[in-house]
Amino acid sequence: MSARILNGTLLAQQIRGELAAAVMDFHQRHGRPPGLGIVLAGEDPASEIYVRGKLKAAAEAGMRADLERLPASASLREVLAVVDRLNRSPLHDGILVQSPLPAGMGATAEQQVFDAIDPAKDVDGFHPVNVGRLVQNRATLAPCTPSGVIELLDRSGIEIAGARAVVIGRSEIVGKPMALLLLNRHATVTVCHSRTKELADVAATADILVAAVGRPAMVRLGFVKPGATVIDVGVNRLTDAADVARIFPPGAPQHATFARRGSVLVGDVHPEVADVAGALTPVPGGVGPLTIAMLMRNTLHAAQARMARAQGPAA
Amino acid sequence: MSARILNGTLLAQQIRGELAAAVMDFHQRHGRPPGLGIVLAGEDPASEIYVRGKLKAAAEAGMRADLERLPASASLREVLAVVDRLNRSPLHDGILVQSPLPAGMGATAEQQVFDAIDPAKDVDGFHPVNVGRLVQNRATLAPCTPSGVIELLDRSGIEIAGARAVVIGRSEIVGKPMALLLLNRHATVTVCHSRTKELADVAATADILVAAVGRPAMVRLGFVKPGATVIDVGVNRLTDAADVARIFPPGAPQHATFARRGSVLVGDVHPEVADVAGALTPVPGGVGPLTIAMLMRNTLHAAQARMARAQGPAA
Repeated sequence: MSARILNGTLLAQQIRGELAAAVMDFHQRHGRPPGLGIVLAGEDPASEIYVRGKLKAAAEAGMRADLERLPASASLREVLAVVDRLNRSPLHDGILVQSPLPAGMGATAEQQVFDAIDPAKDVDGFHPVNVGRLVQNRATLAPCTPSGVIELLDRSGIEIAGARAVVIGRSEIVGKPMALLLLNRHATVTVCHSRTKELADVAATADILVAAVGRPAMVRLGFVKPGATVIDVGVNRLTDAADVARIFPPGAPQHATFARRGSVLVGDVHPEVADVAGALTPVPGGVGPLTIAMLMRNTLHAAQARMARAQGPAA
Repeated sequence: MSARILNGTLLAQQIRGELAAAVMDFHQRHGRPPGLGIVLAGEDPASEIYVRGKLKAAAEAGMRADLERLPASASLREVLAVVDRLNRSPLHDGILVQSPLPAGMGATAEQQVFDAIDPAKDVDGFHPVNVGRLVQNRATLAPCTPSGVIELLDRSGIEIAGARAVVIGRSEIVGKPMALLLLNRHATVTVCHSRTKELADVAATADILVAAVGRPAMVRLGFVKPGATVIDVGVNRLTDAADVARIFPPGAPQHATFARRGSVLVGDVHPEVADVAGALTPVPGGVGPLTIAMLMRNTLHAAQARMARAQGPAA
């Protein structure tokens, strides 16, 4: 074990401390806290956990956060009606619709909902106008997970400019915006995916390797150049004892967790990578806490921009 | 000399033939041709040539094309007023503001103008909402030059899916949308730029190498894997005899052109690359003609989409 472990929980705490001061200032100035509206349709257990984490973080940061719940049987139209109400709400500066929406709403439901969110309140950064501004290196609201990775690299003193970065995964939520943010910061960026040939060889060219595919422990030793920084965005739940035995070395704390809970989390990066990487994010406690911190930051920024607009250009 | 030369002029002719039939059909259906409004501010000689080419191509395709000229001394406000008029014009389905705008309009003038164009008429694909939709792989109007490259690869039988593609250059107009289009087509894509280290080595990993930097003959032998497809987007005008003597081998037709005109064009790719590349686009006559053909296609598509919207969902 040689890799420096990048403690996302600690960094997120630090960021939330900085944000709390700015939130207090906002509250005093405008007589109300920044407000976040979260829309949750259905009862996906992982979504429940994520949403609870977001509500808690908002409360701790001194923000207002309202959860709008809809049953799994809700129609897309009902979701859009809630979004429309939040778009017009003077108390809400940010809107977040938790993914995934219930499958019954159809394959394009999420994009339709993201398209309907006022871009100025789009704290997830998924509206096309915000995605376009990200490409054009003038985003004010960038997606939270990749923004968190950049923040984590910066606060860990890892140089991005001039580095070779490889992103495995090309989702709209992580892979593509991650690549764009790294490019905006002057990395030489390669995006890999299911159709990439000789994936390990391509990954091993990276100074900064970001894994965001959602496949347990798929990034092995051969994917990693010695000394590289490895960012593990994957959060995969193992429920099969054989998988746990295969992936984690004897004595790893994950065995006890699995014995106790019947499941354990693993990232997209195999634990053996710690032997060659220069720095590595753990799962959990790596990228996840940063994601939530960036959501809080986006909500604050959206609130500040909104009040600045309301006060006009002279303010 | 071993590379197969990809004749863009010929392919563009073929595409324009296909478009002419669709344009005629549109004209008959709607009692008017698709219409393109081109805004040209100032008298940049290269812009004059480009705009003339676009007007000619539109006329040949059976489209309407109107040139709105403004003096170099025009204000940004005057340009925006013309854009506003074209946005509201029933006769114009596409709007193109020729780059560069006069420097006096300020550094952000172009982006302000692109932001002001109705996204449904944005045939250059530079509006943030169209850029975002390109990232999300649902663009209807994608930038013309990179779209032309994809078309050229497709019509030349060059496989994109699974290929390693390297794009040198990260401009909003070519490099970034090129990378996104190649990614959408399942290439493994790397974007290089001025901060890239060991550029030649990175370029030499490519099955498809796209050079879009605007530096005469910068891509040398060592940048190219034997057999790779090399797409030369650069159009650089040489006016120094020493450059011409240095770059082109004795007997190349460029020497006669230079003797006759006092200048000659060269791409970003050195002529020596023809010895190792599997396929290569010439300059001129490679990517350029495809760019104009894609502008015509975007204008037709914008016109068709606009009429479909006007007729409502039942039509």
